[in-house]
Formats: sequence, structure tokens, C-alpha cells
Amino acid sequence: MTFRVAVHVLPRRGILDPQGKAVCGALHSLGFAQVADVHVGRHIVIETTAESAAAASASVTAMCHKLLANPVTEDFSIASVEST
Amino acid sequence: MTFRVAVHVLPRRGILDPQGKAVCGALHSLGFAQVADVHVGRHIVIETTAESAAAASASVTAMCHKLLANPVTEDFSIASVEST
Repeated sequence: MTFRVAVHVLPRRGILDPQGKAVCGALHSLGFAQVADVHVGRHIVIETTAESAAAASASVTAMCHKLLANPVTEDFSIASVEST
Repeated sequence: MTFRVAVHVLPRRGILDPQGKAVCGALHSLGFAQVADVHVGRHIVIETTAESAAAASASVTAMCHKLLANPVTEDFSIASVEST
């Protein structure tokens, strides 16, 4: 079976997020003064084959540990697993 | 009221996604041969004040049009709006 797995990778809370700060400043410059904070991470969509949704989720978790997320500075979460 | 709005920005389907191709190749090199395709986009979390969830969503949509997404090459979607 084929699955589409979406992963969110975000800078860990408390770790400096210069890209988020830059976007926040740019939004203020554009007149969006109501914005208090911005965090910018990655949204990764992986098309993969697996025997079950649980197996797809497990293999993508292994990919995150090995490649997709920096374990020192980033947190990741599996956002969705959908059969395609 | 304060809201946390999450936005997904992804390369438009059919437009070259070199970062996704690179990640796909790297995953194959690491032994994840089951991966068919990868797309890499941005996951942006915006903390903002607004009168309602609908107003927060509308203002973040305006931010996407003005700054957060490239209208030529990227698609965006509001992934979630949660009161904080």
C-alpha cells in the first residue's frame, strides 16, 4: 500500500529561531502589528509504500531521526498518515 | 483573543522541487528504498491576536499573499487555527 505521510519539523522551543524573528519583523513592517511571534519550520510530505499506516509512520519516524530533523535543535511530529 | 495559526506552504505540484528531490535521493542512500517521492515546504506558526478565529484566519491569509508564500511557485493552506 502507498501512504502519504506529512511531517512537521520545528525549531525547539527556547532555541533561537532567526528565520521566525525575521518573518515577524517583516510582517510588522507590512502593517501586521497584531503578530506576536512567528516560528518557521519545515513541512515535509513523503510518499512511501508500507504494509500498514503504523509501519509507514514508524519508517518515517526513523527517517526523521536519521536525516530529516536535527536532534539537537529541532522537534518533529508526524502530522498525518493517509492512504493514497 | 490570541490565536496560534499554522500555515503550510508547499511547492506547487508540477513545479520542480529540488529540495524534495535531494531529500528523496538522500533517503534512498540511507536505505529507505520504499520512498517514492518527497516534497519539502514550510510549516509556519503565527501567534497573533484577532477578534475571532475567522478573523485570525483571514489576516494570516493576507500575510501569505503578501509575504509568506510565493504566488508564482507555491501553494499555501491554513492548517489549523487554535485559541491560546
